[in-house]
Amino acid sequence: MENKRKFAVIGGGSWATAIAKMLCENQEQIAWYMRNVNALQHLKEQKHNPNYLSSVAFNTEKLVLTDDINEAIAYADVVIFAIPSAFLSDELLKMTVSLEGKTIFSAIKGIVPETSLIVGEHFHKTYSIPYDKIGVITGPCHAEEVAMERLSYLTIACSDREMAKYVAKNVSSYYIKAKITDDIIGTEYAAVLKNIYAIAAGMAHGLGYGDNFQAVLMSNAIREMKRFIKQVHKMKRNINNSAYLGDLLVTGYSVFSRNRMFGNMIGKGYTVKSAQMEMSMVAEGYYAVKSAYKLNQMYQAKTPIIDAVYQILYGGKEAKDVFKKLTDKLN
Amino acid sequence: MENKRKFAVIGGGSWATAIAKMLCENQEQIAWYMRNVNALQHLKEQKHNPNYLSSVAFNTEKLVLTDDINEAIAYADVVIFAIPSAFLSDELLKMTVSLEGKTIFSAIKGIVPETSLIVGEHFHKTYSIPYDKIGVITGPCHAEEVAMERLSYLTIACSDREMAKYVAKNVSSYYIKAKITDDIIGTEYAAVLKNIYAIAAGMAHGLGYGDNFQAVLMSNAIREMKRFIKQVHKMKRNINNSAYLGDLLVTGYSVFSRNRMFGNMIGKGYTVKSAQMEMSMVAEGYYAVKSAYKLNQMYQAKTPIIDAVYQILYGGKEAKDVFKKLTDKLN
Repeated sequence: MENKRKFAVIGGGSWATAIAKMLCENQEQIAWYMRNVNALQHLKEQKHNPNYLSSVAFNTEKLVLTDDINEAIAYADVVIFAIPSAFLSDELLKMTVSLEGKTIFSAIKGIVPETSLIVGEHFHKTYSIPYDKIGVITGPCHAEEVAMERLSYLTIACSDREMAKYVAKNVSSYYIKAKITDDIIGTEYAAVLKNIYAIAAGMAHGLGYGDNFQAVLMSNAIREMKRFIKQVHKMKRNINNSAYLGDLLVTGYSVFSRNRMFGNMIGKGYTVKSAQMEMSMVAEGYYAVKSAYKLNQMYQAKTPIIDAVYQILYGGKEAKDVFKKLTDKLN
Repeated sequence: MENKRKFAVIGGGSWATAIAKMLCENQEQIAWYMRNVNALQHLKEQKHNPNYLSSVAFNTEKLVLTDDINEAIAYADVVIFAIPSAFLSDELLKMTVSLEGKTIFSAIKGIVPETSLIVGEHFHKTYSIPYDKIGVITGPCHAEEVAMERLSYLTIACSDREMAKYVAKNVSSYYIKAKITDDIIGTEYAAVLKNIYAIAAGMAHGLGYGDNFQAVLMSNAIREMKRFIKQVHKMKRNINNSAYLGDLLVTGYSVFSRNRMFGNMIGKGYTVKSAQMEMSMVAEGYYAVKSAYKLNQMYQAKTPIIDAVYQILYGGKEAKDVFKKLTDKLN
């Protein structure tokens, strides 16, 4: 595959901005869609995204900037979605151009609320995209460290191996190393589940549990993640690879994680509503846990941590009481 | 087994103090040996260890305090060693009483420098203690959090299952949960190796690598630990259990870890000697990496992280250069 497949980035947040930056290290030109026209205008004139990773300077000659999602999709062979899963359906309603022949990459770490599906499955079922035209870009990777050009490792999942390699090559640079895998289902579920575990980690901290417990919680979380993903899509995978365990750790141990912060506030006694208002943003894990919990009614994997977070956020149970019981189920 | 086997704790540091505290929750009386007579006198009079976990108040009526290691050993059926591995041989030279019939538990996380053996193996080979009379007490557990009575989980390893249960029961309380295993070799190696990985984590931080890289490093470390331990003692074990992965995480992510602190200073450009003088204490991992590296000349497990730490601490190589190469070996 020659270096001529064109990319579009869909989204204006920090992860979309980080991906645009990575691609610009290798591509002559990329399309970049965001719905915020003020941010777009600022980016055109000032060469920075005003709201996210604002330190990153872009060579705007390389950017086809647009507030029309169809223009971006029409431009590209590889379309990378990096918007919160809660807004995906609305954005896709605007779509009039065909996705046929294009490869869709999800850089979204969440479940689509309307269908309770991970993004790859959502595109497959709702837009009939074949699975070999679906991919995942996953961390462990805080976008902020990409902005600072601190060495980070990405995993590019796609069952079309050549496409995986192509995308890996085009996000790589002296500060990004990318490996490939064909586990599109497992890597995306890992990216979704880790947000739930980050909420749990935050709750534990908010409740006054210490570092010893945190380590036990994370070591139970990775075993739980393994059981869950195995039920959803059984294949040979090493759950301790960076895309699974690494991604869990970078989020679960980060004090900057929105999900951990959200959990921390719940642990300290905030209601869900007041925590969300205080943060003025949405923690992906809040939606993910509802879907994961319901999905697991079918799969029946042993998931005490997911169950606990669900009971606290949706079952009206006290975090303190639920965690007290959870501690007896961990080891 | 009735609740009548007597315990002795050997050591005056923070982990020894934490173990003494745990045992006092369940035992009528325990023996406690430390070589520092001033600390011992203070403990007798003031009911606190003046140097470590000094907030913990002891009921001294429960303590047979002694600066004679033979008195402590003679008193007990179960002898728990919790002194730095570098001082173990010297302490054992003082021993004149027999260890016959007694069970020896290692709460030491290091390799005995004189024999390059983990503590259990050292007792087995040097003192002919049968393996079913050897056990391990392992975390993830910072002693400081035991002092604060924050919930912590211990793993008690002993091939004598009844003895493992007995010790587990006697360290348990409302803030300690203990599980048992028969993997005395694997749990002790894990406790040793994690200190090397904590040094690596500190070096990475000192060199300016960020959280994304740290997560990749830890996810590679647990895979490396699994390979190494499998070579040393092959048996069915889940490396993601708390005694292995949890212990790695609590140390690797702790800013209070001596090993991580030591690595951090090396990463920032301190020499080994100046880092050790600055810290005025010894990082166990400094000795462990030498033994692990040499041992692995025989086992030939793929251990890029251990190799890198060894080259920096003993091979005279620059941390910056070694880590640059290491980043290409991780994924």
